[in-house]
Amino acid sequence: MSDPVREGVLFVVSAPSGAGKTSLCRELIDRYPELRQSVSFTTRQPRSGEVEGKDYHFVEEDVFRQMVAENKLAEWAEVHGNCYGTSLNTLQTAAEQGVDLLLDIDFQGAAQLKQNYQHGVFVFILPPDFAELERRLRGRDTDSDEVIEKRLKNARREISEAGWYDYLVVNDDFQTALDQLSAIVQAERCRSQRNQQTLAKLTGE
Amino acid sequence: MSDPVREGVLFVVSAPSGAGKTSLCRELIDRYPELRQSVSFTTRQPRSGEVEGKDYHFVEEDVFRQMVAENKLAEWAEVHGNCYGTSLNTLQTAAEQGVDLLLDIDFQGAAQLKQNYQHGVFVFILPPDFAELERRLRGRDTDSDEVIEKRLKNARREISEAGWYDYLVVNDDFQTALDQLSAIVQAERCRSQRNQQTLAKLTGE
Repeated sequence: MSDPVREGVLFVVSAPSGAGKTSLCRELIDRYPELRQSVSFTTRQPRSGEVEGKDYHFVEEDVFRQMVAENKLAEWAEVHGNCYGTSLNTLQTAAEQGVDLLLDIDFQGAAQLKQNYQHGVFVFILPPDFAELERRLRGRDTDSDEVIEKRLKNARREISEAGWYDYLVVNDDFQTALDQLSAIVQAERCRSQRNQQTLAKLTGE
Repeated sequence: MSDPVREGVLFVVSAPSGAGKTSLCRELIDRYPELRQSVSFTTRQPRSGEVEGKDYHFVEEDVFRQMVAENKLAEWAEVHGNCYGTSLNTLQTAAEQGVDLLLDIDFQGAAQLKQNYQHGVFVFILPPDFAELERRLRGRDTDSDEVIEKRLKNARREISEAGWYDYLVVNDDFQTALDQLSAIVQAERCRSQRNQQTLAKLTGE
């Protein structure tokens, strides 16, 4: 491996549920296989088809609480009654290896990360409008009316607080949103502050 | 025309001569025809094939000096004995119309603009190395050895001062550099600070 000339970038993607974040992140990783997806710890039960260590690290609540108590999590949040968190170790390893990391996390967790990772890149995915968000949530056919109402209410709150994110991507047309997300990844890799070594190498010739 | 929901972005691209800036900007405009290229004023003589009002506004030195004296230029610089500048009017019109503007200008002019246009996006194009830059300059076969030496010396100085630009794009492979430049345009259009109206519209629903 050649010497790293660029530090790893931390990409944090949040969205209200139904905005299409999971599919967008999956396709993004397909486009950029060298982008490593961070695997969160969670106390929720695995859904059908979910794989331990790939989709999540599934842990019991006491294990999760212990990680919190021991400051082993860079961020964590309780969402709809379940806990989700990112281990500090994941971030440190990626940083040391100069690997770009993709975090698909809740906006509460993102706000925590923002405190300690100012150089992270924070992207918020928006639905085109609330009517469409509701259509998508109902279209999934997995949640009760009550749960959908709760998700919509949460979505309004999250969106009203999303102004601090670095980028806003509206997921109206999926391919357009994916192209914009890809452009953000590519552009951020060219950020001057991440490439001072390239400059130093060139001027040191 | 629909209401503008995003303010126009000012893209400023600089590079040492021979780094490929002009070709990259031309291709970028081909990809994004809605990106308007700013036409600079210059006191230098038109080269063969250059069109007044398209490549430059060619003016006499006294006219240029008058524009400077009347504060009609947003930036100007003297490069290799000729003056180049961007009219304030060009920037104001684009801003009012919500149009994204591309400025292909010298690093001295870019540094001036940076003072008054903090939200502009400043991109510096780098050659892969100085040997390649020299090959490209000699390959153009238009300049004397003396001029080439001067250009190389200037390139070293400009590159050593390029650290303040927002983005660095290395033009080693032309297509890769063009893709990166395109990604910067796309990503910057998604910047949160430029899309607060989208957010306000959504949360105001």
